[in-house]
Amino acid sequence: MGNHNSFREALAQCRQADKTSENQAREYLDRLTKPVGSLGALEDLAAQLSAIQGRVPPAAPSKPALAIFAGDHGVLEEGVTPWPQEVTTQMVLNFLSGGAAVNSLAKSAGASVVVVDVGVASIIDWTGVGDGDNEPRFIDAKVRPGTGNLASGPAMTIEEAEQALSVGASLACEMIADGADLLLTGDMGIGNTSPSAALIAAITGKSAHEVTGRGTGIDDDHLERKVAAIEAGLARANPSGINGVDGVARLLAELGGIEIAAIAGYIVGGASLGVPVVMDGVISNAAGLVAVAAKPEILDFLIAGHRSTEPGASAAIEYFGLSPVIDLNLRLGEGTGACLAVPVIQASARVMSEMATFDSAGVTDKT
Amino acid sequence: MGNHNSFREALAQCRQADKTSENQAREYLDRLTKPVGSLGALEDLAAQLSAIQGRVPPAAPSKPALAIFAGDHGVLEEGVTPWPQEVTTQMVLNFLSGGAAVNSLAKSAGASVVVVDVGVASIIDWTGVGDGDNEPRFIDAKVRPGTGNLASGPAMTIEEAEQALSVGASLACEMIADGADLLLTGDMGIGNTSPSAALIAAITGKSAHEVTGRGTGIDDDHLERKVAAIEAGLARANPSGINGVDGVARLLAELGGIEIAAIAGYIVGGASLGVPVVMDGVISNAAGLVAVAAKPEILDFLIAGHRSTEPGASAAIEYFGLSPVIDLNLRLGEGTGACLAVPVIQASARVMSEMATFDSAGVTDKT
Repeated sequence: MGNHNSFREALAQCRQADKTSENQAREYLDRLTKPVGSLGALEDLAAQLSAIQGRVPPAAPSKPALAIFAGDHGVLEEGVTPWPQEVTTQMVLNFLSGGAAVNSLAKSAGASVVVVDVGVASIIDWTGVGDGDNEPRFIDAKVRPGTGNLASGPAMTIEEAEQALSVGASLACEMIADGADLLLTGDMGIGNTSPSAALIAAITGKSAHEVTGRGTGIDDDHLERKVAAIEAGLARANPSGINGVDGVARLLAELGGIEIAAIAGYIVGGASLGVPVVMDGVISNAAGLVAVAAKPEILDFLIAGHRSTEPGASAAIEYFGLSPVIDLNLRLGEGTGACLAVPVIQASARVMSEMATFDSAGVTDKT
Repeated sequence: MGNHNSFREALAQCRQADKTSENQAREYLDRLTKPVGSLGALEDLAAQLSAIQGRVPPAAPSKPALAIFAGDHGVLEEGVTPWPQEVTTQMVLNFLSGGAAVNSLAKSAGASVVVVDVGVASIIDWTGVGDGDNEPRFIDAKVRPGTGNLASGPAMTIEEAEQALSVGASLACEMIADGADLLLTGDMGIGNTSPSAALIAAITGKSAHEVTGRGTGIDDDHLERKVAAIEAGLARANPSGINGVDGVARLLAELGGIEIAAIAGYIVGGASLGVPVVMDGVISNAAGLVAVAAKPEILDFLIAGHRSTEPGASAAIEYFGLSPVIDLNLRLGEGTGACLAVPVIQASARVMSEMATFDSAGVTDKT
């Protein structure tokens, strides 16, 4: 995690996916024994995997890997959530001992899990946690202990933002070197739907009101304070010139959070090595917007694993022009929605490689 | 498949699922280390499995099994589709040789496949088809070679409808006896979105126009003829008194199809033995409506595996009050959407049994 230039290096290596393979994939899909387009979004996924891999049909990803980035948020001062900050640490320990929703869903998806402290406010004492089999793995890569309050000042320095971006980018590259062929994003951070909404508003141009929701479930008073905090942050940061590496570092420094920056870097790291990245919910969607603002070609490697109930998630997914794989009203984060998408993504590649064509099966096409 | 009373016997055994277990499941879900309700529809699925199994947490279904019922349709005379009738037979052979989309998706879901001819117009010569390992298995249970044209006369006799219902009910019971703990529905039949739309209109009270779509992909002329054929069928059959065993047999005899009747029977067979049934697309939704019209308690055992693009599918799912597990614009049938839902259904049970509670994990609940 030591190289603070990892993000810039990874970003420089990002290229567009292979559009020729994507077109060949679409032609091939139309020759399979089914009415044209009848597998719906499954065909889009298969064509995207073809473009990413540069081959038709694509191979089904067989080694999904999830990184959960954790951080805390100074915006809690504004009273945006009823959950106390210590829950971030408690949930990190819950991940490490295997008791969280994401542990079960990652297991079902066959995904390895790594938990990364990039910005938790307290020092995480994880000695004795877990069953000793090193799964999930824990990485201490703390950039700083929590962000500043985005409503009243910068969340972090530009250097800290770049450091967090590089933690994510270098971890992604390391995971791919270890064999991962499908990266899943995950997050933990009490209050982190606030910086996510702020980033989504800044990048999509929507208002704070339009993209701010109830997170994991807050009441009207909390929601009002949350919208006000995000509006204050946007007014203060006055985001403009948010594209390119300097633009996104500046934006993240203003609005945070540390784990969102790390996820953005992780997405860039995956794309730089030609590996698809499955976004989880609204926090990951915000990070995806940041990554695409840094370099638009990165969009070719992004899959919307699910649609969170948070309005900012729909705003981001619409901005990307993507369709969510899973749409089950989840609003938990952690990577849970990304994990649920894995079998569908794998099936999209398998069905394309295993089906017969009209010619080979002797089936009459429509007149 | 010989017992023509199987359907009536299975129907008599259907009971409501265990609402006490469902309530206990909801209370238990709220003690898990996540904000209340944050796993969205995954929690509803887990609670439904608890109700069906009568235990909290539920066991994850481990032996999904798909039956694909095939039949032909006299309504093709009306010019409702550009696909020739012989494609039904060709696709049955494609299923048996493993080249269809559903073969791949069933394999990904870990589901066994049985293909049942209940009403294909031609005699299926399946000697030499497949790789000799008896998977998929083929069952010849032909009730009659295709239906009559529903626009101008009954699709079949009431006795034939009851026979088809019993084929499905007894097959479901046989599959459960062989260990299946999650039944998936599938269909094949060129033209079968027409009788499905007719049944959905008859049962939900919506108009033919509202529930009729482009099936696997027809043009405006075909669509116009399709709506007209369904309107003619509804006017002719004048469906009323469609509830209970006699009502549904009469309705199926008027509007068909043979494979839809068999799927309805199969659903009843599953519910009679307390096994959840995952519906595929609009054809299965129509069969589900028929099953629930026969006995409302059967709804407790139904899962909407996916939402087909066909408008009748949304009308039926809304009528059931269900949420689809998968919503990816599929319009293929065969059981493809039901197969894609399997990992999500399994994950819903696993996450409930594997997660820690707030107490056990030492996580602070919200203030």
